[in-house]
Amino acid sequence: MHTKEMSACIEACQRCAATCLEAAMHHCLEAGGQHTEPRHFRLMLACVEVCRASAALMLIGSPSHRMQCDLCAKVCDECAADCERIGGMDACVQACRACAKECRQMAGHAVAA
Amino acid sequence: MHTKEMSACIEACQRCAATCLEAAMHHCLEAGGQHTEPRHFRLMLACVEVCRASAALMLIGSPSHRMQCDLCAKVCDECAADCERIGGMDACVQACRACAKECRQMAGHAVAA
Amino acid sequence: MHTKEMSACIEACQRCAATCLEAAMHHCLEAGGQHTEPRHFRLMLACVEVCRASAALMLIGSPSHRMQCDLCAKVCDECAADCERIGGMDACVQACRACAKECRQMAGHAVAA
Amino acid sequence: MHTKEMSACIEACQRCAATCLEAAMHHCLEAGGQHTEPRHFRLMLACVEVCRASAALMLIGSPSHRMQCDLCAKVCDECAADCERIGGMDACVQACRACAKECRQMAGHAVAA
Repeated sequence: MHTKEMSACIEACQRCAATCLEAAMHHCLEAGGQHTEPRHFRLMLACVEVCRASAALMLIGSPSHRMQCDLCAKVCDECAADCERIGGMDACVQACRACAKECRQMAGHAVAA
Repeated sequence: MHTKEMSACIEACQRCAATCLEAAMHHCLEAGGQHTEPRHFRLMLACVEVCRASAALMLIGSPSHRMQCDLCAKVCDECAADCERIGGMDACVQACRACAKECRQMAGHAVAA
Repeated sequence: MHTKEMSACIEACQRCAATCLEAAMHHCLEAGGQHTEPRHFRLMLACVEVCRASAALMLIGSPSHRMQCDLCAKVCDECAADCERIGGMDACVQACRACAKECRQMAGHAVAA
Repeated sequence: MHTKEMSACIEACQRCAATCLEAAMHHCLEAGGQHTEPRHFRLMLACVEVCRASAALMLIGSPSHRMQCDLCAKVCDECAADCERIGGMDACVQACRACAKECRQMAGHAVAA
C-alpha cells in the first residue's frame, strides 16, 4: 500500500522509538551520571514520541507526515549527537541516524550533501 | 512547573485528542457517508496523533515542543475546517480551534492578526 | 537486554499495531460497508492501542507487561476473528494471530492446547 | 456520548498520565537519588502508558476498556505507593489514587471498602 521508501521509514521510526525507550529505561537509568542528566534523558524521550508520531502519520496516510518527518529527523539527529557525546550508546546512535536519514527523505529533502 | 500558557496548551491538546478520537469512533462511524470519507477520517486521526505528541513534548520539557506545536496548529486548523465543511461536528471544531490557538502561541507566533 | 522471547513479542506487537492501523485507515475506509461498521472498526483501533501499550511496557521493563500482554492477546484474537468474518483482511489476521501467540507466551500461559 | 462515570475516568487517566510524565521528566530527573532508581522510574513511565491506553480504549468505545482499566488501577496503586515511599511526590500520589479509583469503578468492581 505504501511505497518502499515509506515502509522503510515507518520501520526506521518504530525501531528508533523502541531502541531509545529501551536504552533510556535500562542503560541510562542503570548507569546514572551523565545518562540521567535531565537534558539528555528528555531528548531520549522526546525522540521516542516524535518517532511514534511520524510512524503513525505515515500509517494513517496523512499528508502532514512530511512535516512530522522533518521534525523527527531534527530530533533524531540531536539525539544521536548527544548519545555520541556521552558514549556507550551505539545502538541509539545508529537507530537515530538511520531514522533521521529515512525521515529526511520522506520530508522531501534532497539526499545529497 | 510549567508556565500558565504551557499548562493551558497541554490541556487543549489533550482535550482535542480526546474529542477527535471520540467523535471519529462514534459520530463519524455511526453517521457514515462524508464522515467516513478517507480524507476526512484520516485527518481526524492525524489530529489525534499530533495533539498527543505536542502534549507529550511539553510535559517532557523538550525544546522541540515549539516545532511540534507549530505542526499541531496547522493540522488542527485543517481538521476544524474539514469538520465545518461536513457539518454536525461542533465539538471537534471548537476543540481544534482552541488547540490551534494555544499551539500557535507556544510555537512563538505573534497572536495579533 | 531482553530475552529472545521478549524481543520477538515486542516486534510482533509493533507489527500488529502498524498493520491494523494501516488496514483500518486504507483498506477499511476505502472499502466501506462491513469494514466501517462501528464494532469492527473500533476493534481494529483498540487492537492498535493495546499492542502499543504492550510493546511500551516490555521496552520500559515493567513487570506489568504480563497483564498487558494477556489483555493484548485477547484483543488480538478477537480482532483476528472479526477480520476473518469480514474477509479480505489477511494481513491483519496474520499479524493479530502472531501477536496473540507471542503475547500469550509472555503472559505466562502454557502454549500447548 | 459517554456516561458521566466514563467521562470522569477518561479525565482522571489523562490527568494521571500527564502528572506522572511531567513529574518523572522534571522532579525525578532533577532530584536524582531514589527518584531515578530504575524500579521507581520505570513504574512512573509504565503508569503513563497504561493510563494513555485506558483513556484511548474508553474514547474508542471498546468493551476491552474494562480489562484495561482493571490493569490501570493496579499500576496506579503501585505507583502511588512507591511515590509515597520516596516522598515529595504528592501530585503523583493524588493523581494516581484518583485514577485508580475511577478505573476500578469502570472495571466493574464494587466501590465499597
